[in-house]
Amino acid sequence: MRVVVLRLGHRPERDKRITTHIGLVSRAFGAEEMLLVGRDPAVKASLDDVADRWGGDFRVVESVRWKDEVRDFREAGGRVVHLTMYGSRLGDVLDEVRRSPQVMVVVGAEKVPSQLYGLADWNVAVGNQPHSEVAALAIFLDRLWNGAELEEGFESRFPGQIRVVPTARGKLVLQHGDGSSGGGGP
Amino acid sequence: MRVVVLRLGHRPERDKRITTHIGLVSRAFGAEEMLLVGRDPAVKASLDDVADRWGGDFRVVESVRWKDEVRDFREAGGRVVHLTMYGSRLGDVLDEVRRSPQVMVVVGAEKVPSQLYGLADWNVAVGNQPHSEVAALAIFLDRLWNGAELEEGFESRFPGQIRVVPTARGKLVLQHGDGSSGGGGP
Repeated sequence: MRVVVLRLGHRPERDKRITTHIGLVSRAFGAEEMLLVGRDPAVKASLDDVADRWGGDFRVVESVRWKDEVRDFREAGGRVVHLTMYGSRLGDVLDEVRRSPQVMVVVGAEKVPSQLYGLADWNVAVGNQPHSEVAALAIFLDRLWNGAELEEGFESRFPGQIRVVPTARGKLVLQHGDGSSGGGGP
Repeated sequence: MRVVVLRLGHRPERDKRITTHIGLVSRAFGAEEMLLVGRDPAVKASLDDVADRWGGDFRVVESVRWKDEVRDFREAGGRVVHLTMYGSRLGDVLDEVRRSPQVMVVVGAEKVPSQLYGLADWNVAVGNQPHSEVAALAIFLDRLWNGAELEEGFESRFPGQIRVVPTARGKLVLQHGDGSSGGGGP
């Protein structure tokens, strides 16, 4: 399945870190790109840098028009999931979403255009309590892949220059390129 | 199981929104409090307001000393999980963590004190790619409860003044107190 994330409502003056986290979560949980409504070179540079060092070909596309992206994606046979705390229960729609070969996940800010509720194939709630678009995206993608992306997916598909070896204490990091393995105490 | 979250490394000038998201995720995913190293009245006020309107008795305790909290929690019979991308695989430790009646989840910032790796009962990685402490906390808690908190837990235990009814299109919100049900189109 091909997954892309569309981030609405980014305001550079206050959303830099949240949008960066959304981008990092998108990449780590198997999305291939984040489309950003708005422009923020600092966010893009920081995500590009992570992809360079940690592997994969995740990319950020800025300045998109959300309605065009949603329409084009659907016309190309993809389906669109809008994450909102008002939506259907995650567990009720997940099986159906999993049958789509291409999924766009739309992540809003505090206010999203009301049209979006009608244009999305599914409005999906990751719980009906207020929490976080970062958390909602992570849990949605984790459940979408049934946990597989987290457990084994990323590193095997996209070896990077840097690789963490899971360890009970401290930090063990393999650096590709110089043949050495860094690590030791934290 | 009793769960508390300890948030390290909050810097009011740049972490306001990330720490607020950590607090909201803590509450929505069943933690009973967030202990904050540092002070931030704006973050606390915003989380108190959510708890007032949406139910439950989640609380924020500011200005804690992390080492004292970790020590006291362990002396009282609790176990401490430190979320770090360098730690053991989530799936390898979850069964063991679930056997603890009291769990403290420590969520760091970019740098955490190196002592913490030794003082925690488990250093746990929610994947070994860089992503987000908000996402890591959400997935850890979601998996800890085996998804039950998200599906059915919160609203039944903690009815609030406001309650969202999951719906495929638009917003349906029940307001307690005036007997009316708000809602309709987004």
